[in-house]
Amino acid sequence: MEIQLENNLQTLRSASPLVHNITNYVVMNYTANALLALGASPVMAHALEEVEEMVTIAGALVVNIGTLSSHWVEAMKLAMKTAAKLGKPIILDPVGAGATSYRNNVLAELLETAPPTIIRGNGSEILALAGASIKTKGVDSTVSSTDSIEAAYALSKKFGSVVSVSGAVDVIVKGNQAAYISNGVPLMTRVTGMGCSASAIAGAYGAVVKDPFEAAISAAATMGVCGELAFREAKSPGSFQIAFLDTLAEITPAHLTELAKIKYA
Amino acid sequence: MEIQLENNLQTLRSASPLVHNITNYVVMNYTANALLALGASPVMAHALEEVEEMVTIAGALVVNIGTLSSHWVEAMKLAMKTAAKLGKPIILDPVGAGATSYRNNVLAELLETAPPTIIRGNGSEILALAGASIKTKGVDSTVSSTDSIEAAYALSKKFGSVVSVSGAVDVIVKGNQAAYISNGVPLMTRVTGMGCSASAIAGAYGAVVKDPFEAAISAAATMGVCGELAFREAKSPGSFQIAFLDTLAEITPAHLTELAKIKYA
Amino acid sequence: MEIQLENNLQTLRSASPLVHNITNYVVMNYTANALLALGASPVMAHALEEVEEMVTIAGALVVNIGTLSSHWVEAMKLAMKTAAKLGKPIILDPVGAGATSYRNNVLAELLETAPPTIIRGNGSEILALAGASIKTKGVDSTVSSTDSIEAAYALSKKFGSVVSVSGAVDVIVKGNQAAYISNGVPLMTRVTGMGCSASAIAGAYGAVVKDPFEAAISAAATMGVCGELAFREAKSPGSFQIAFLDTLAEITPAHLTELAKIKYA
Repeated sequence: MEIQLENNLQTLRSASPLVHNITNYVVMNYTANALLALGASPVMAHALEEVEEMVTIAGALVVNIGTLSSHWVEAMKLAMKTAAKLGKPIILDPVGAGATSYRNNVLAELLETAPPTIIRGNGSEILALAGASIKTKGVDSTVSSTDSIEAAYALSKKFGSVVSVSGAVDVIVKGNQAAYISNGVPLMTRVTGMGCSASAIAGAYGAVVKDPFEAAISAAATMGVCGELAFREAKSPGSFQIAFLDTLAEITPAHLTELAKIKYA
Repeated sequence: MEIQLENNLQTLRSASPLVHNITNYVVMNYTANALLALGASPVMAHALEEVEEMVTIAGALVVNIGTLSSHWVEAMKLAMKTAAKLGKPIILDPVGAGATSYRNNVLAELLETAPPTIIRGNGSEILALAGASIKTKGVDSTVSSTDSIEAAYALSKKFGSVVSVSGAVDVIVKGNQAAYISNGVPLMTRVTGMGCSASAIAGAYGAVVKDPFEAAISAAATMGVCGELAFREAKSPGSFQIAFLDTLAEITPAHLTELAKIKYA
Repeated sequence: MEIQLENNLQTLRSASPLVHNITNYVVMNYTANALLALGASPVMAHALEEVEEMVTIAGALVVNIGTLSSHWVEAMKLAMKTAAKLGKPIILDPVGAGATSYRNNVLAELLETAPPTIIRGNGSEILALAGASIKTKGVDSTVSSTDSIEAAYALSKKFGSVVSVSGAVDVIVKGNQAAYISNGVPLMTRVTGMGCSASAIAGAYGAVVKDPFEAAISAAATMGVCGELAFREAKSPGSFQIAFLDTLAEITPAHLTELAKIKYA
């Protein structure tokens, strides 16, 4: 298997796809800036009255349940239905899955509404989403990503989705295929919105790369390599957060080829 | 025509006007910090129960429709009505105008509720607001600002508003007057919330400068000059975003006189 | 009286308590990053459907009324009731108290719902909360913190709360005790979310330190000392904001002992 990391980044930048995010309050600014820095075009819109039209003009839909409330859930469903009907990629970020039964119930409803093209979460969220009855410790904690591979395979088979599990090693699963990406730095877990940005960037790649497995791998590799490059500039969370945005703008296709560590199984 | 750029900045800083923002989730933090850095005093409040009182103690009202939903629209209308009754300047930022019919309908309702003192948007938003039936590509895209001058004149005549069109050259229109401001740097389009900050800062100047045309010019010149000064420090979007906030605090009246490039027509 | 500043910071970092925030849109990202940087684990959740469960798995609840609306108030009450029943510390940040009657009414309802363990605000907010009929000038303004000591004592006696008044000198009151903390820098008032971060960090300490008076003092000292350390790196508000997050991650227990200036009365 050969992922066209360089081409995909160039395509993203030349197409500058509009990514429609229905996401949480905590990360809206950061993910909008991450998309802009990388070269995509973000829009955040959650009104029931406009999500259909917004999905229609967008290249991908990213749904993130970080700060849920009931009227947002209705808009998420309508947007997902619309995206599915139009054949636009849907990225689901199950933030805090397992933390409360409300989150689990909403996630079950969303999965029934339309199968996501890509599901991206940390290990505990993917485990919870797959029905493993664990309780997460907040939205930033993780279990080992390799522990949750079984859950990722199960989700992928049930919904036909690519499942991207973020962790020290990112594991990306589609059907019986898996890719392991060994990039990134631990400091990324000390900045809020890194996972949410990974999902948003999966939306940007999903909008321009036909194969969602390849899109998810490109997104995870871009995040990980940018994390490593940013860590050369900044070792503490505040300045790292800013250096990471800089790096998303500065990263070249050649950086990806040179630094991405991807294995397939 | 002689704009008192230096005096206006000094007045803003000595008065530190309270600017009441009903704005979008994406930029709330950044625009609050921009107002604080420049020397104004921000408040963000959107509850129907309190917007009348908040407008009453504020020096200006900034309404930004970036992340619309229906209960916010009711509060926007009540706040605009109150501001109009009390003679306080209203700044309207029609984020994403033209992207969905919901946005267009809400904007039409807001314009009927009370004529804005200043309307500030990018070229495509101003075109859409003026009824030109174009579809915007997301909230950060622009058409050439000069293309939208006709739309700006039409809006200004219909509503008596100053219309400030942001772009490579900012064009500010009032009745038959126009000012062209050739400051700023392209990197400003790669940071979310720059346009929204321009609107918030127009609110801060609007609160302390009697003539809204002069207030809008002062705000656009301040944004553009700060963009140029910040670009001396930072060439990538993350660090530029931070340098821009620093510059809002550091800019002196003399910087404005020295660097602002304003032409009148 | 001997506050175990060093131990408390070490305990916070080793326990990494989950802090449940129902807070305002403006500061959500910054306070989440502040908690993560210091070593705690943030969660932001406001849905009526899930706050009970979220409080149950959290170590502390922080309620901040910065951008109020009615359906959030219901969730705040339910969360506070749940926290009180479970004996978990409740931190109340009365942002903008006194600015509108809606805020005052909501605060009265919240105080009736459950007595906060710690109330943290600036001088004008504490005065307003204590019923002094003053009008605040926005959410970032302050009166001298010493002016509001009487109000703090009154609140502490009425509700059994620790009351932490932020200002040039922070004053922390419990019953007849008071602590005065002379740390921090004036630039902290030019960055939005500093007060809200102080409340969130009081939640983090409250989750791991038994005595709420000691928790509030540890939080205020940590904020103030980090402000001084960050000011060594950055003198303007944008870069200071980022340096402050870095400092929260970098501060050692020894820094606290060395730099904290605490007096008791």
